[in-house]
Amino acid sequence: MNKYGLHGKLQAKDGNGDALAAILLQASQLVSTAKGCHLYLVSKDAQNPDSIWITEVWNSKEDHDNSLQLDGVGALISQAIPLMADKPTKGLELEVLGGLPA
Amino acid sequence: MNKYGLHGKLQAKDGNGDALAAILLQASQLVSTAKGCHLYLVSKDAQNPDSIWITEVWNSKEDHDNSLQLDGVGALISQAIPLMADKPTKGLELEVLGGLPA
Repeated sequence: MNKYGLHGKLQAKDGNGDALAAILLQASQLVSTAKGCHLYLVSKDAQNPDSIWITEVWNSKEDHDNSLQLDGVGALISQAIPLMADKPTKGLELEVLGGLPA
Repeated sequence: MNKYGLHGKLQAKDGNGDALAAILLQASQLVSTAKGCHLYLVSKDAQNPDSIWITEVWNSKEDHDNSLQLDGVGALISQAIPLMADKPTKGLELEVLGGLPA
């Protein structure tokens, strides 16, 4: 079965891109140990330092949704929200066909 | 130094998404052995089976650009072009901050 992918942007308030990215990097540490997580990439838009992109690959959507209940994730989300310029949108849902590192 | 990321869409002609993805999966096998390649993910847009997304992470833009000269890549590109509805655009360039699998 193909894996579940998600690629979405979190827009930080002006000048808060690095602070938001730092929180998301903590989340990536936390979430990468979650069941079914293959990738939780944190990137900055090369053209806009306040646009932070998260690229995720999970065994299933269910594994992804469950990870939001992990201890510590809620606290990180509440740290991140005040730094955001807009309410996060779900992002692009992908059916991952292949190409993950072995 | 942060890694170089690229996330772009290749739009297949109607009904050609699977055929295009198959070629790109071959490319991902080839390219994943290239110097500096950490990720070459091939995904299908969950809402549009003819939209194929490539998510790449490289040590540098230079490594990415060099990979286009690899034996076999040119042949795959010429196989892919007739299946595409539009000329491919460069895609979103990203500064990858972290979260790659160990």
